[in-house]
Amino acid sequence: MSLRIIATGGTFDKHYDPQTGQLTFRDSVLPAALQRARIAQDCVLEPLLALDSLDMDDRHRQQVLQACQRSPEDRIVIVHGTDTMGETAAVLGQARISKTIVLTGAMVPYLVDGSDAFFNLGFACAAARLVGHGVYIAMNGQLFDWDNVTKNHELGRFETLR
Amino acid sequence: MSLRIIATGGTFDKHYDPQTGQLTFRDSVLPAALQRARIAQDCVLEPLLALDSLDMDDRHRQQVLQACQRSPEDRIVIVHGTDTMGETAAVLGQARISKTIVLTGAMVPYLVDGSDAFFNLGFACAAARLVGHGVYIAMNGQLFDWDNVTKNHELGRFETLR
Amino acid sequence: MSLRIIATGGTFDKHYDPQTGQLTFRDSVLPAALQRARIAQDCVLEPLLALDSLDMDDRHRQQVLQACQRSPEDRIVIVHGTDTMGETAAVLGQARISKTIVLTGAMVPYLVDGSDAFFNLGFACAAARLVGHGVYIAMNGQLFDWDNVTKNHELGRFETLR
Amino acid sequence: MSLRIIATGGTFDKHYDPQTGQLTFRDSVLPAALQRARIAQDCVLEPLLALDSLDMDDRHRQQVLQACQRSPEDRIVIVHGTDTMGETAAVLGQARISKTIVLTGAMVPYLVDGSDAFFNLGFACAAARLVGHGVYIAMNGQLFDWDNVTKNHELGRFETLR
Repeated sequence: MSLRIIATGGTFDKHYDPQTGQLTFRDSVLPAALQRARIAQDCVLEPLLALDSLDMDDRHRQQVLQACQRSPEDRIVIVHGTDTMGETAAVLGQARISKTIVLTGAMVPYLVDGSDAFFNLGFACAAARLVGHGVYIAMNGQLFDWDNVTKNHELGRFETLR
Repeated sequence: MSLRIIATGGTFDKHYDPQTGQLTFRDSVLPAALQRARIAQDCVLEPLLALDSLDMDDRHRQQVLQACQRSPEDRIVIVHGTDTMGETAAVLGQARISKTIVLTGAMVPYLVDGSDAFFNLGFACAAARLVGHGVYIAMNGQLFDWDNVTKNHELGRFETLR
Repeated sequence: MSLRIIATGGTFDKHYDPQTGQLTFRDSVLPAALQRARIAQDCVLEPLLALDSLDMDDRHRQQVLQACQRSPEDRIVIVHGTDTMGETAAVLGQARISKTIVLTGAMVPYLVDGSDAFFNLGFACAAARLVGHGVYIAMNGQLFDWDNVTKNHELGRFETLR
Repeated sequence: MSLRIIATGGTFDKHYDPQTGQLTFRDSVLPAALQRARIAQDCVLEPLLALDSLDMDDRHRQQVLQACQRSPEDRIVIVHGTDTMGETAAVLGQARISKTIVLTGAMVPYLVDGSDAFFNLGFACAAARLVGHGVYIAMNGQLFDWDNVTKNHELGRFETLR
């Protein structure tokens, strides 16, 4: 049973650019991360977007939706920025796709000391394998339903709405 | 819903000792790993043993069993060496405890470049939260039942028996 | 023979702030870096400033100059941002202090994967111990005189002027 | 002015082998380390041996000596295990080669968390560029003459003999 991993960018995948001193996007870290996790042979990686999630608009969300719809694998992990992860999850959730879709991301980039990215990827991959159809957010060691989750920006954590 | 994390040592938790040039055990890496994963507040960490799993005997496995039995949390992750993870899982599985117990470990120590440990911990924490009562092994991105798993030593991977 | 290490910030010492998604300054990485280098007992660390070197003005450079002048150690390493390292070196060089002063920094922060910071620190510490009085810049494995060095921004390297 | 870097193995260059659980030698980390240090274009890397320095015998030391003698570059860094670094330095020192030769190594492998290797490499490269002909050991932020140095095994540090 293969898993599809869709990369869209976000903090998870940011690189440091020595010329500008900014965090930007280059080749995704995911091919190396999947090797290191020893799951590369069980995954199909789809590098779809490379964006800060604050720069995502409706058109980008439709691209993510279409990628999920056309995926031959019915278990999908989406690596996404945390700032608008909830919006993308809502677009996917309202589309009622008969697949298991888990969005995850990171509070600290994969390539920065102390990153939560690799743990979150592991958590999301397990959730995508183990839960039923639906759209979920996997962050800070918890799995949230797409319609009951919000990012607490002060604490840098995801929480249930109610 | 709290998770109990029981540390028993294993490759996951090995440190390099500059005096001997050997990999040994010191303070567990798990407190730092749980902070980094941003789940420390949702976990109870129990540092039970600090052993290479090849050095585990029946007495140690009884200690692990008792720790699971007395755990007030009914969702448990055990960090364990990979070489005898199956034996410990069998002892726990045959005891038919009404809890969800997930054993995990690492092929490369947490503190060594390219380690799978942090991903495996994330995968195991998700599994412990999401599956029903039983004893499982979470390695290389898959969840195995305790009575249908073996370590393929050549490939360094866990596989189903049948 | 003790070495004085003066921290002023710069790329070397930038941290990722999960709340803003920006690279900023927090506690310096230098205490941990000196421990890891096994030189903490032979160094005096002076945390003077915590600035992007583009934000340094004449007043800050006078602070750096005064720190060098009052230093009881006559061998000094200054950790500094690369963008205006040459300007600070010029202020120190023109002051003709009878000490050995070596400025260094990093193209990639110490806490980011692939950082040159720790190598540069080693290079600068050796230079500070081994060369005569004067003001120098130690970057990309070379030692430059303060009045014959420029940063090539396209290549991200320091070069001699002539 | 190019630097020759001669790799002989040692703790600096040890890799973790997931199959055996031991630290062994594979491809040297030095090509990646020189890139990261941004000095690859100014260095010639010679992968000569890949040995624990406790396994080095006279024959190996003659190989190191010959590599130094035939080197067209007269500034040489040798990456070497710490346990017999002094013996190799003595063989080279007694040969009275008209070159600058700096031996360095690490107390913790380059690929293990908290390694001193990259700092030591930077320190050794600076020393090789800055001091006169002779044979030296660069460890724990100090430069030692080959005939006045010993490894304090309890402290894990190099010290002068007198």
